[in-house]
Amino acid sequence: MSGNCFNIHQANLFLYKMEGKEEDVRLGANKFRERQPIGTAAQVPDKDYEEPSPAPLFEPSELYSWSFYRAGIAEFIATFLFLYVSVLTVMGVVKSPTKCGTVGIQGIAWAFGGMIFALVYCTAGISGGHINPAVTFGLFLARKLSLTRALYYIVMQCLGAICGAGVVRGFEGGNQFKLNGGGANTIAHGYTKGDGLGAEIVGTFVLVYTVFSATDAKRSARDSHVPILAPLPIGFAVFLVHLATIPITGTGINPARSLGAAIIYNKDHAWDDHWVFWVGPFIGAALAALYHQVVIRAIPFKNN
Amino acid sequence: MSGNCFNIHQANLFLYKMEGKEEDVRLGANKFRERQPIGTAAQVPDKDYEEPSPAPLFEPSELYSWSFYRAGIAEFIATFLFLYVSVLTVMGVVKSPTKCGTVGIQGIAWAFGGMIFALVYCTAGISGGHINPAVTFGLFLARKLSLTRALYYIVMQCLGAICGAGVVRGFEGGNQFKLNGGGANTIAHGYTKGDGLGAEIVGTFVLVYTVFSATDAKRSARDSHVPILAPLPIGFAVFLVHLATIPITGTGINPARSLGAAIIYNKDHAWDDHWVFWVGPFIGAALAALYHQVVIRAIPFKNN
Amino acid sequence: MSGNCFNIHQANLFLYKMEGKEEDVRLGANKFRERQPIGTAAQVPDKDYEEPSPAPLFEPSELYSWSFYRAGIAEFIATFLFLYVSVLTVMGVVKSPTKCGTVGIQGIAWAFGGMIFALVYCTAGISGGHINPAVTFGLFLARKLSLTRALYYIVMQCLGAICGAGVVRGFEGGNQFKLNGGGANTIAHGYTKGDGLGAEIVGTFVLVYTVFSATDAKRSARDSHVPILAPLPIGFAVFLVHLATIPITGTGINPARSLGAAIIYNKDHAWDDHWVFWVGPFIGAALAALYHQVVIRAIPFKNN
Amino acid sequence: MSGNCFNIHQANLFLYKMEGKEEDVRLGANKFRERQPIGTAAQVPDKDYEEPSPAPLFEPSELYSWSFYRAGIAEFIATFLFLYVSVLTVMGVVKSPTKCGTVGIQGIAWAFGGMIFALVYCTAGISGGHINPAVTFGLFLARKLSLTRALYYIVMQCLGAICGAGVVRGFEGGNQFKLNGGGANTIAHGYTKGDGLGAEIVGTFVLVYTVFSATDAKRSARDSHVPILAPLPIGFAVFLVHLATIPITGTGINPARSLGAAIIYNKDHAWDDHWVFWVGPFIGAALAALYHQVVIRAIPFKNN
Repeated sequence: MSGNCFNIHQANLFLYKMEGKEEDVRLGANKFRERQPIGTAAQVPDKDYEEPSPAPLFEPSELYSWSFYRAGIAEFIATFLFLYVSVLTVMGVVKSPTKCGTVGIQGIAWAFGGMIFALVYCTAGISGGHINPAVTFGLFLARKLSLTRALYYIVMQCLGAICGAGVVRGFEGGNQFKLNGGGANTIAHGYTKGDGLGAEIVGTFVLVYTVFSATDAKRSARDSHVPILAPLPIGFAVFLVHLATIPITGTGINPARSLGAAIIYNKDHAWDDHWVFWVGPFIGAALAALYHQVVIRAIPFKNN
Repeated sequence: MSGNCFNIHQANLFLYKMEGKEEDVRLGANKFRERQPIGTAAQVPDKDYEEPSPAPLFEPSELYSWSFYRAGIAEFIATFLFLYVSVLTVMGVVKSPTKCGTVGIQGIAWAFGGMIFALVYCTAGISGGHINPAVTFGLFLARKLSLTRALYYIVMQCLGAICGAGVVRGFEGGNQFKLNGGGANTIAHGYTKGDGLGAEIVGTFVLVYTVFSATDAKRSARDSHVPILAPLPIGFAVFLVHLATIPITGTGINPARSLGAAIIYNKDHAWDDHWVFWVGPFIGAALAALYHQVVIRAIPFKNN
Repeated sequence: MSGNCFNIHQANLFLYKMEGKEEDVRLGANKFRERQPIGTAAQVPDKDYEEPSPAPLFEPSELYSWSFYRAGIAEFIATFLFLYVSVLTVMGVVKSPTKCGTVGIQGIAWAFGGMIFALVYCTAGISGGHINPAVTFGLFLARKLSLTRALYYIVMQCLGAICGAGVVRGFEGGNQFKLNGGGANTIAHGYTKGDGLGAEIVGTFVLVYTVFSATDAKRSARDSHVPILAPLPIGFAVFLVHLATIPITGTGINPARSLGAAIIYNKDHAWDDHWVFWVGPFIGAALAALYHQVVIRAIPFKNN
Repeated sequence: MSGNCFNIHQANLFLYKMEGKEEDVRLGANKFRERQPIGTAAQVPDKDYEEPSPAPLFEPSELYSWSFYRAGIAEFIATFLFLYVSVLTVMGVVKSPTKCGTVGIQGIAWAFGGMIFALVYCTAGISGGHINPAVTFGLFLARKLSLTRALYYIVMQCLGAICGAGVVRGFEGGNQFKLNGGGANTIAHGYTKGDGLGAEIVGTFVLVYTVFSATDAKRSARDSHVPILAPLPIGFAVFLVHLATIPITGTGINPARSLGAAIIYNKDHAWDDHWVFWVGPFIGAALAALYHQVVIRAIPFKNN
């Protein structure tokens, strides 16, 4: 899968001759004053931002830095709290005979999306606020972090998710927890595995594309407070995908969340579909990285 | 319809003598220090912003710019994701026998409004973040973009919408999709076509007026981060109009959304009302452009 | 009632000796470095903001300014759209036999609060974004606008509200509209007029106190983007008061909204309670103005 | 409990050698350029912020400052309004035979979270916007305010909460109020006291950790508008914890809220569980303070 990222940096497509249009188009504004004819971009080197150089695959020195370990702890705690609040909300809704006396399915969607908003806000300055292996994978493909760091984050996220789901099981009791599905992701009756995979791919695309747009280094340079606002659309993306795909898969778009719930729930029908909740999000994240780097940032064409 | 825009720039009404009051009135603040007697505005040329000159109808050079094509691709992808998430949410609610076990009608309103928030945030820097032919039309009337670009955006938006609704039909299956209305806009039993048209006009007015207010070049000059915040009220406007008019028309206020769902649904009763979802939004957008340019910006009087 | 405002400016209470503590305490921050012993404030004249001088009661020159008339038109249009969207949402919920197939009572609360958020955002730069006679009254008591302007705003708000409710009646039909209460405010069975009055007083206090806090000139000076963010807490305040008091009065806290719905609905039981929805909000607004000026800003003590 | 805070400042753990990594990692950005090898941080003294010195336990001079008393009044009014709106919302939902005709359990969660958002926004500049003894306790442990001020705030919060719940009882009538639980926190049937305590601990951890992250002095220095945005994630944290734990304890995470409702409700079964709603939040707040100071800010290691 990581081969994608090399393709991104080396691709040489039919768009080649249109390279280098780096102007930004403001919301609803007149686009004309910023337009440049093809080929002139190279004569305009005074950018107000600097494209960060791609992260190396391995960076031994970061292993000696406290911020590296602190970032992993922050990812662990954030994913723990994410699973704790969201799975507890799911259990409260599912075990009630009538949904009207609960926060409802919409409340579940708010729990997932709202926690991502709050946790990204809190941990963005510490670890980047991924809280999701698919986000880590997408940012790795775009070379925003090293392979070492990516793997470390994913392990910490999965451990946090398992602990979070485990605490909910502790509160609810094992029987109750199993009876009510344990918040695990499965493909609903009436949908094929292909439907579920597709829903996970497009849903993760929505999330990771929002992450890329919200954290774009170029955009940050012009408006330094953009990253501060970024958690809101990122949280909304998670909320919205849940509104749409809870009836299909329960909505994963986060392999750590799916794994944590599946391990604590631990029943065959959850494990049977489990691969969907890793393959789907990783494909969706790769497509979002590809779309952002090739279409939006046009990075391959700049390197030629 | 585009004749409106020329009228806007040339009108010479009874307000003529009051021209040139360009002061801004802060939220709840004392208005007196900014007040100017009639006729003095022309002596105060030191504005902190520059009114962008109207976009030409045709701008051949933009056809050679990568950003032009990138903007169209971004509109396509955004409208695709918009229809995908919103129509999938509609299907999940409609096909359930009891709405209490779903995200509910309110969840549908969040899906439409929330997606517009997230997508405007993501694409504002690339294409202006229209995702709606009525918005493109309103901004064109105010001469914020060329006719070429407006038509190109509208075509891309419609194609994206068709694909988005098509993917949902793929997931749900053709029978299920048709049985449940396919998310298509129709005028509900108990309302006349005139009611539906009126609801679309006022609803689109709310949306496009919010777009104009949020992206006002003058306002941006004073507070450069306003456009960054703009996606939130724009998304809320879509959410609110859905709260109000889902019982009447299912809420269009976006011809691409109506067209995409109608083509994939493809039943007579949707096509019979379909004109309402083009004429209504375009009239609403034109009225919002007129209101903003004549009353709020007083542009005709400045040109005299 | 306007006598209150003179009291505010001339009061000489037991707090006299503690006058002049103008330091601001940051969110959760160490308060000690900003603390000043009593009496030293007068020696620290280098403020980063300027207290605007109180608005005169009558300011004839503003009658010759286009921005004055534009502001009234903006209040009219905003209150029109506010009533249109909110009353239409109410009708959609009320006429359905089961609330589960509608946006629900919570959706009604979102319609009121969300519209205030979007409309304050849009009109704050034009008229101050009052959209509510109680807000106008509270800001008048604090001398933020002239009596002329306050009365003009209130008239325009009431006219806009009548038109907005009228359009909804046009869509719904007179019989349907009357049968379902027409969105008019009445005191619910089981509550006394005193309960209703109290609910309106405290509810309007929440709203107007939020308006004062959000638009505080001192706060704006330090953080110039605060007023830009202000519409969000103001809209939330309206949403929250609706969550709490819809079961008691249907929630007025806005005399224009109550008057518009009552005139179009026009039945005796709505008119019988109608005074509650003027007296309550005006008392609440006066208390909020008093609280902000005396306790928060300590203005009376500074003038002595 | 306050011994924790001294431990925080004096601890000397295995992390000692990794001290001083103070770089911040931007949301999703390349972390490499900011990474520093161990031990070099001390050679980089040019910070753009200053760590505020710990507040003293007793600061006699603040007792002579108007801002000290004003802050207490602001905490009183804010907690009064918080209980008034939230308990009134609870009563409206609980007394209805079918939840579908009310704002629902989700509406209750919005009432609690939304009020915290609006009130923190309004009072942050006056008192720090705690509105919660657990928040005050957590910030005291981190030495952000004196013991005098902390105790004064907690007393004012409790008085405000009692008055707020009392007004709701006045509106609803004593019988109705008692019959419907009076908004008091109790541990639901099917959960042990340990479950309830755990839910309160983790829930308060989520809230207080968000408060610490949102108001981090270092973060504020880089982006001065962060504290302005902080009320939103703080309010969301309260909303989310309510979504998750209303079925378990009704959600306290605020001892003043629990005490106010319990005193006005005044029935044995509420008093039996009442200690949970003081011990749980205080433990959660202490853990959040510990986590933030030791892991995120690494303060103990800097002092060595």
